[in-house]
Amino acid sequence: MMIVMKEGASTNQVEAVIRQVEQTGASAHVSRGEVHTVIGAIGDREHIANLELEGFPGVDHVVPISRPYKLASLQFKRGQPTVIDIDGRRIGGTSFMTIAGPCTVESRETMLDAARIVRDAGAQLLRGGAYKPRTSPYSFQGLGGEGLRLLQEAKEETGLPIVTELMDARDLEPVLEVADVIQLGARNMQNYTLLTEVGRSGRPVLLKRGLSATLEELLMSAEYVLKEGNANVILCERGIHTFETSYRFTLDLQAIPVLKEMTHLPVVVDPSHAAGKRALVPALSYAAAAAGADGIIVEIHPEPEAAICDGPQALYAEEFPEYLRKLEQAAALAGKEPVRV
Amino acid sequence: MMIVMKEGASTNQVEAVIRQVEQTGASAHVSRGEVHTVIGAIGDREHIANLELEGFPGVDHVVPISRPYKLASLQFKRGQPTVIDIDGRRIGGTSFMTIAGPCTVESRETMLDAARIVRDAGAQLLRGGAYKPRTSPYSFQGLGGEGLRLLQEAKEETGLPIVTELMDARDLEPVLEVADVIQLGARNMQNYTLLTEVGRSGRPVLLKRGLSATLEELLMSAEYVLKEGNANVILCERGIHTFETSYRFTLDLQAIPVLKEMTHLPVVVDPSHAAGKRALVPALSYAAAAAGADGIIVEIHPEPEAAICDGPQALYAEEFPEYLRKLEQAAALAGKEPVRV
Amino acid sequence: MMIVMKEGASTNQVEAVIRQVEQTGASAHVSRGEVHTVIGAIGDREHIANLELEGFPGVDHVVPISRPYKLASLQFKRGQPTVIDIDGRRIGGTSFMTIAGPCTVESRETMLDAARIVRDAGAQLLRGGAYKPRTSPYSFQGLGGEGLRLLQEAKEETGLPIVTELMDARDLEPVLEVADVIQLGARNMQNYTLLTEVGRSGRPVLLKRGLSATLEELLMSAEYVLKEGNANVILCERGIHTFETSYRFTLDLQAIPVLKEMTHLPVVVDPSHAAGKRALVPALSYAAAAAGADGIIVEIHPEPEAAICDGPQALYAEEFPEYLRKLEQAAALAGKEPVRV
Amino acid sequence: MMIVMKEGASTNQVEAVIRQVEQTGASAHVSRGEVHTVIGAIGDREHIANLELEGFPGVDHVVPISRPYKLASLQFKRGQPTVIDIDGRRIGGTSFMTIAGPCTVESRETMLDAARIVRDAGAQLLRGGAYKPRTSPYSFQGLGGEGLRLLQEAKEETGLPIVTELMDARDLEPVLEVADVIQLGARNMQNYTLLTEVGRSGRPVLLKRGLSATLEELLMSAEYVLKEGNANVILCERGIHTFETSYRFTLDLQAIPVLKEMTHLPVVVDPSHAAGKRALVPALSYAAAAAGADGIIVEIHPEPEAAICDGPQALYAEEFPEYLRKLEQAAALAGKEPVRV
Repeated sequence: MMIVMKEGASTNQVEAVIRQVEQTGASAHVSRGEVHTVIGAIGDREHIANLELEGFPGVDHVVPISRPYKLASLQFKRGQPTVIDIDGRRIGGTSFMTIAGPCTVESRETMLDAARIVRDAGAQLLRGGAYKPRTSPYSFQGLGGEGLRLLQEAKEETGLPIVTELMDARDLEPVLEVADVIQLGARNMQNYTLLTEVGRSGRPVLLKRGLSATLEELLMSAEYVLKEGNANVILCERGIHTFETSYRFTLDLQAIPVLKEMTHLPVVVDPSHAAGKRALVPALSYAAAAAGADGIIVEIHPEPEAAICDGPQALYAEEFPEYLRKLEQAAALAGKEPVRV
Repeated sequence: MMIVMKEGASTNQVEAVIRQVEQTGASAHVSRGEVHTVIGAIGDREHIANLELEGFPGVDHVVPISRPYKLASLQFKRGQPTVIDIDGRRIGGTSFMTIAGPCTVESRETMLDAARIVRDAGAQLLRGGAYKPRTSPYSFQGLGGEGLRLLQEAKEETGLPIVTELMDARDLEPVLEVADVIQLGARNMQNYTLLTEVGRSGRPVLLKRGLSATLEELLMSAEYVLKEGNANVILCERGIHTFETSYRFTLDLQAIPVLKEMTHLPVVVDPSHAAGKRALVPALSYAAAAAGADGIIVEIHPEPEAAICDGPQALYAEEFPEYLRKLEQAAALAGKEPVRV
Repeated sequence: MMIVMKEGASTNQVEAVIRQVEQTGASAHVSRGEVHTVIGAIGDREHIANLELEGFPGVDHVVPISRPYKLASLQFKRGQPTVIDIDGRRIGGTSFMTIAGPCTVESRETMLDAARIVRDAGAQLLRGGAYKPRTSPYSFQGLGGEGLRLLQEAKEETGLPIVTELMDARDLEPVLEVADVIQLGARNMQNYTLLTEVGRSGRPVLLKRGLSATLEELLMSAEYVLKEGNANVILCERGIHTFETSYRFTLDLQAIPVLKEMTHLPVVVDPSHAAGKRALVPALSYAAAAAGADGIIVEIHPEPEAAICDGPQALYAEEFPEYLRKLEQAAALAGKEPVRV
Repeated sequence: MMIVMKEGASTNQVEAVIRQVEQTGASAHVSRGEVHTVIGAIGDREHIANLELEGFPGVDHVVPISRPYKLASLQFKRGQPTVIDIDGRRIGGTSFMTIAGPCTVESRETMLDAARIVRDAGAQLLRGGAYKPRTSPYSFQGLGGEGLRLLQEAKEETGLPIVTELMDARDLEPVLEVADVIQLGARNMQNYTLLTEVGRSGRPVLLKRGLSATLEELLMSAEYVLKEGNANVILCERGIHTFETSYRFTLDLQAIPVLKEMTHLPVVVDPSHAAGKRALVPALSYAAAAAGADGIIVEIHPEPEAAICDGPQALYAEEFPEYLRKLEQAAALAGKEPVRV
């Protein structure tokens, strides 16, 4: 951490900062420029994290130097990517994974139909929400336990591993019975209770970036899971809030190559929620794969017009195989290919 | 809801939309412009909410007309503001409330000292966090149950009602024992589990706006609480994420007069977290009061330099009385005054 | 345009709005919902544009229905893309174009070296700035007229058409002597003087999106050029301002498929300025091409470490041919290929 | 400037950076932490500005330490605020100034009526646009030279100094004949041609912050004016682009106290354009004054319903005196008062 003193800060102020730094167990390294004196605080993460010098007398501002996350950093794995194996399907490194399915579990028939479409096209995992976070209390909130049961049935019939969302720590047990990957939604990215609980569960986690979370904040949330001993975290970019009003969210594809420099964890992209409409989904998906994403999580529906939730953004069954073919071509450009079981 | 058809949409497409509208129980009202045909869907909120026509063949875009919140709307209370009474102190209407205290409960001594400073200056409520949401898993996470006990002691000594944060629904019982107002933090604004539980508890709630939540989303979250029969929701603006890097968050004071047009619920402002440093807090506080805020929630600390958390933004004890005096002058400009017990 | 009246708006207020609508020559179409009365104003763009009803007594809000741009709209060309021919190289439709060169014209030697690298690899156009908009008045501001002369020499030697920026309408004449495409920078996207002048010049224009311009605002700026009779406008996405601090700007690749639904004009992407560093440029470029961009404008430099300006984001000469090969593969995924002369 | 090397950067890489720093005439100061080596580049602004080390081999990132603006900095005036005298009216320090008038000059009658309202209420300056930057080429673009003539007439009748916008450097001469303060609009904040020309003119400048300009960028634009020897720059906050859709722009009142820490230049706030509607203007104005703004620039109109431009946000004549009285009370809270001639 670098503490930049104000122009004209007094010797006493500089010394007070040095004392504060040394009290936490860190050492201070002073560098006097023409305008500003800068004090480097050198020590371990924990020491530095407890220094609160912003606003201290004579301090202009404070610049963090080390990244605040450790287990999630690329350096922690010496530059090697994490590869996660989910019942034989792999994600990370050179393995590309497609996760597909309906937004929400609606009925036995649509769930099984969707599962067959996903399996027949050759995608790797099946998604579907039993618990749905909805902005409005008046919207459909998911089938809950019955939804989990239908996901189990779809898994048994098709052999596809399941990704499904957990919203409430009190539902962890039943979700663990069916989920091969637990999804944490964007609104819960900083729900530390959930992060800690899924961390303890050891089950792979798909962690969505919050709508206004910086990449560093996303990695700090991953760190909560990793710190509990669960190394299987998949990061998911799904669109951020910007001033642009032509689309629901702005899909931040620049996050892909930047995350690759920051972390060893795999990165998937959800093009469906950012787009909000089907016509944009293929272009955004191919772009994500060409940019080096490790996978895509996309919504498909046997009959989008009749969907209870987010039908307008779901791909049609008949376009899914061609979509998958082009998606995998784009992934190949980035040196990745799917693992089929 | 207005459904705007694409230029050149076919008669069949228009009729399909009309059928879809009528199937949900709403009625359709067609208006043909020179370029676009527009279909109005007229019916109640629930019917309309289930219409998912974005992306439907021939549909250009969909424009919501009615606001999606009902119980939170100004119209629901026929334009009358909600006034909430917390053990004799009032907020809303013409009553202005100052909530002050340390960011986190650190020790018996600092908590009791802080409580006396707050009481002696004449502020209404005492704040302090026992459970702290922290971006980093390596930061201090709060004293938990011991923190609640210290808040109880501060309350008994000073008579000040307590505002404290709830992060995990499993902690609701102990929090209810001491909290006169339950705070839900910005990161939990869309934690529907928590919203529902505090809604059921009936206890007044201070609901912080998420870092990238629109005002409409904030009101939808309030609606989750109101829908459970708990009418005592205080909204809190605490800064949003923007491109500006000179400050941690951008305090959105425009939200105050706009929320006053949208809702009957009281609005408080937290200047401390947006500013991130003490020197900005007074100006932001006076501005908020002059703009018509119903209250302020501000951090003070007996010894900010020694604070475990957010010391740089805490006001000093000795500046607090003068701060409060000017704050109340600013509130008077907006026609509000504090109620002292 | 739809005028949504407030809940409880009086009959007089509704009638006043109707009169106002009719006074401008538009006709009014009233639709009464359960909560809101909505008045549709039907007429041509010019009539409607002069209606200023936001804030009118009883008016809740106003919803535009028709898009405010006309010549730039996809409908204006009946869904057919504009293809622009620049001395035999084409952009738009199925033609993909790569524009490359140094950020700024620095010296005869580097300019000619850069031009040869661009030509030898097979890119279509040569870029280079003689006039440079710089945030700081203390930064290098470009070689001006001497820079234009060097561009002319590079053009003569390599046969590559030139893209260069115009910042001041008073420099139009000399710029027209060398530029095959005039670039208008992001900071000048709403410089209506420049837009009008380059519109009148008839020369193809590369118009960069402002850092916080919505796509609609970008198209309105293009409309200024088109309105002067100049149909040769190329739109350029180059990154927007968001809260994310890990990169200089956030490249908005979602703009590509969305612009394709809004306009017939070709869309290129500038990955260099958003990234700010070389390592991100290839991934962002391939993503842009896979998403359907009509071209890329990218910075290369014979010796980036010695560049006066933006060296860190310039591709190396030796990596450019392989970059171009993969870029064109990504474009092929979207059905586009380069035209070589 | 601090150059943070990557974890594991080699000795050769560190030495190469040191050489690069020293080549520009700066000196290098090395500090080795547990993870990162940090190199401080110490020297004057010009030397440092030419260092482009982002992306250099082994460099993780670069942290600027000194502010890039000099003449605009608070330190340059040793902490003393600039006070600008405009024909006896003052702004800055303890002097508060209200600038009022119609958005655009529409006709002789409305201009003179507006001027009388402004003078009678006791405001200091008269605003009105002869040249109007409009997003749409189909909107009214201002009366141009005729508008300037009407402003001159209003000035002669009321004695009020005039603030009017300059959009095109070629109009500088006629604008200088009538303008006591030249306004540069938000879209032209980085129009360096205009900044330089008004800098050379010596006339006081009201410089509006761009919609997505950081405060540092705003000060860099001011620096362009100051560098030409024109010390009379008034900064203007008028709303920024955020994700919030309930209002046109988000007025950033936090900018006021932060700018006061960064610069000696006076700061005014334009509440009208951010609000977009009259009902929000008073609350935003009082808040700005209470936060320490040096002035307000606000729109009033004798007959807002008939205004050609921005009528919905113009205050009514009859509410203006009471508005001004409360505005000055709010300014008094921040220790400022108006100077009346």
